[in-house]
Amino acid sequence: MIPTASSSAADALPPISDELLARFSAITGPANALSAPDLLAPFLSEPRDLWPGRTRLVLRPGSVEEISAILALANETKTPVVPQGGNTGLVGGQQPRSEGEIVLSLARLNCVREVDAVGRTLTVEAGVVLAEAQRLAEEAGLFFPLSLGSEGTCQIGGNLSSNAGGTGVLAYGNARELCLGVEAVLPSGEVLHGLRRLKKDNRGYDMRDLLIGSEGTLGVITAAVLKLFPKPAGRAVAYVGLASPEAALDLLGVSERLGGGRLTAFELIAAQGMEFTLRHTPGARDPLGQRHAWYVLMEIASQTSEADASETLEAILGEAFEAGIVEDAAIAQSLGQAKDFWHMRENLSWAQKPEGGSIKHDVSVPVARVPRFLAEAGKAVTAAIPGVRIVAFGHLGDGNIHYNLSQPVGADKAAFLDRWYEINGIVHAIVAELDGSFSAEHGIGQLKREELARTKPAVEMNLMRAIKGVFDPNNILNPGKLI
Amino acid sequence: MIPTASSSAADALPPISDELLARFSAITGPANALSAPDLLAPFLSEPRDLWPGRTRLVLRPGSVEEISAILALANETKTPVVPQGGNTGLVGGQQPRSEGEIVLSLARLNCVREVDAVGRTLTVEAGVVLAEAQRLAEEAGLFFPLSLGSEGTCQIGGNLSSNAGGTGVLAYGNARELCLGVEAVLPSGEVLHGLRRLKKDNRGYDMRDLLIGSEGTLGVITAAVLKLFPKPAGRAVAYVGLASPEAALDLLGVSERLGGGRLTAFELIAAQGMEFTLRHTPGARDPLGQRHAWYVLMEIASQTSEADASETLEAILGEAFEAGIVEDAAIAQSLGQAKDFWHMRENLSWAQKPEGGSIKHDVSVPVARVPRFLAEAGKAVTAAIPGVRIVAFGHLGDGNIHYNLSQPVGADKAAFLDRWYEINGIVHAIVAELDGSFSAEHGIGQLKREELARTKPAVEMNLMRAIKGVFDPNNILNPGKLI
Repeated sequence: MIPTASSSAADALPPISDELLARFSAITGPANALSAPDLLAPFLSEPRDLWPGRTRLVLRPGSVEEISAILALANETKTPVVPQGGNTGLVGGQQPRSEGEIVLSLARLNCVREVDAVGRTLTVEAGVVLAEAQRLAEEAGLFFPLSLGSEGTCQIGGNLSSNAGGTGVLAYGNARELCLGVEAVLPSGEVLHGLRRLKKDNRGYDMRDLLIGSEGTLGVITAAVLKLFPKPAGRAVAYVGLASPEAALDLLGVSERLGGGRLTAFELIAAQGMEFTLRHTPGARDPLGQRHAWYVLMEIASQTSEADASETLEAILGEAFEAGIVEDAAIAQSLGQAKDFWHMRENLSWAQKPEGGSIKHDVSVPVARVPRFLAEAGKAVTAAIPGVRIVAFGHLGDGNIHYNLSQPVGADKAAFLDRWYEINGIVHAIVAELDGSFSAEHGIGQLKREELARTKPAVEMNLMRAIKGVFDPNNILNPGKLI
Repeated sequence: MIPTASSSAADALPPISDELLARFSAITGPANALSAPDLLAPFLSEPRDLWPGRTRLVLRPGSVEEISAILALANETKTPVVPQGGNTGLVGGQQPRSEGEIVLSLARLNCVREVDAVGRTLTVEAGVVLAEAQRLAEEAGLFFPLSLGSEGTCQIGGNLSSNAGGTGVLAYGNARELCLGVEAVLPSGEVLHGLRRLKKDNRGYDMRDLLIGSEGTLGVITAAVLKLFPKPAGRAVAYVGLASPEAALDLLGVSERLGGGRLTAFELIAAQGMEFTLRHTPGARDPLGQRHAWYVLMEIASQTSEADASETLEAILGEAFEAGIVEDAAIAQSLGQAKDFWHMRENLSWAQKPEGGSIKHDVSVPVARVPRFLAEAGKAVTAAIPGVRIVAFGHLGDGNIHYNLSQPVGADKAAFLDRWYEINGIVHAIVAELDGSFSAEHGIGQLKREELARTKPAVEMNLMRAIKGVFDPNNILNPGKLI
């Protein structure tokens, strides 16, 4: 386990009392107030096994009114509340840190409030699972482009509070850009009614965007109006082999020029990631005949037709071959094959687990600087840990690289992971030098809270703290996370 | 002049003293500290002639450091500061209200900080004129889609602080969506360095979007990173005649389905607006042979070719004709003709002036509800003022209607304008009923400040006031505007 500095303060909290537990439980009713260890367990472990959670109580409210009552009581009794969606977060933001904190699960708040096919909006409650939101859009003949590895489990509320990214950002933007309005319960128990379905609305300060990305520290998002898009008439997907990140950047340039708004994904994968995926994914097959140093998975989506998508993709690859940018490319010949290609990308995250300890980075730099970042970081981490295996992959079109480092073969896992923050420091220094961000799409949570406080200019940190004080004067909402 | 409630408080302010005037002037140097009446004049009148400005001093700083020094001094001496860009705002947000207030002109802060053609960003200072930003993008082989009637004069800083809309929002979003990062000077004089060029950056609360749209009440935006887009390879423009707003909505549906991301403008114009434009624009010609009750000006932009743009537009209009949605349509046969079509739309604003007094509304509703809004508002305002001439036009694709009412022929202008707030009340009540906004893209400024305070839920108004207090505890930045 990597050290988490914020746990000490939470450790000092006494467990919540039986009396308080009963008062909270009365709000949701006993069936939705979990305290038996076996029922608590799924809420207390998270995907990275880095932040084991502790709590005496998980509340599963079924309405905004119940959430309002819970927060009002928490505020009155100064009880810390940790909002939790699908529990897929990668930075420990959704984990309670002591038995003095209670978990507020949004899972039961999962109604569809409205589907507006003409205005192309979908209004859902926070607990709706992302894949379900995608399905609802599809059912309305439309498309909701937010797409993440965890989409079968993660929830809209969590997506918004963490301003989730994913593979669709290149063409459609982050979760922030996909949301027109939010409803939220404030720590006081008051409800902010902001479910606006308007494309233009300049009535005062932008509370929506303040809540989005605040990781549940300012308010609990209970519902949102999501933007839907016309469903593409055709898609074309290619797996491309290239010699370098520079070549990938050149291919991106050609793709954006010829593809325009039709370029909907552009994922970069280092050979090491490809190797792990082939090794650990049953039935996985290299789409290309030979190994390459780098791979790109790209997708074109056309509003017009399948033919337009294919022709556009072929035109892009044709020009790239002629210009010597790409070494090899395979175009998916069927929907099944396209899915297989995507599968290769999606399995990257899991394929690292059997290889031992992995030190993670979720960084972004201006797009044009990605090759320089990869070169400099590669040199630095190899100097620090000879034999380290670099599993760099990510959304090149967004300048967002998941710069993951698997331990050297045969190394001691615990000793390797002990160097987490040291290696973070090396990589993040290079990111800072390139005007990048050490937190691109996974958020701050527990993992990067200290780093945020240390690196953000004082003027901005002070504003953030004062805003936190405005919303949550008793610091009951997700303390020890982000701020 | 329509009554502006906020002027009374400003009237009570004593003029700034000669001593203070000298201290402020020393910061910019005398050449850029204007106090002669003839030099002040252009800063004190605005497009609608509704908020005559008053001040003793206009400062024209040439650097962020000077702005920082000005705000620090203003904060120390509690001197109100009114930031002003191109002075094109339509709600009085940029006008000083008394000789106790000073104007901070951003016009000289107009450097281009960086053009990044690969990352497709343009970093400019606040005083760069919008048309110049468009030109810089063009020069880099790219496209900056923000487009307003006042683009030859308005400045990027003002565009962002008012979250400007315009005709490009349908495909590219408001000013907010076109900005990756901002640099701003806070009332304390501290500088917020937020010129990020990152598409993904989740490091804490979203200060950028709090500053954008805050109308200069939280900080002075001094520079911004703007998003650029691939330049369309071809455009096609049509002027369409229709029987009703419902038909226009149907045409929008067909256009979005067949056009996808290529539909870049969809402007609705009522017959009355067309009539005024033809009457008052020298050389204007009706693109269609007969009069229609409603018109749509639409544009398709293709990344591929001129031919693709034309063919797409023809396919849309073909289907719409067959379905009986449109009555007539003219497709521009040349760039010159396309410009003429756009000219008809752009002259709408000016063509209302010779027709006497005009009571303005800048409202938005969910797109599907625009026809209902127009029907209900039409009935209500005609009942209130028989003979009133309804000049409704705007961005149907965004649900944003400029619902302007010209006085009845021969009516008394002053008496008509005296009913401004009464008529606003009637129209805005219908907007509220339809979950719309009484401030879509022009902002709050002085014009709608009281209405905002009256209609926004207390919980949100209180948060806004507390946030204002965090940024600007002495209330020196643009007091009497927005909040």
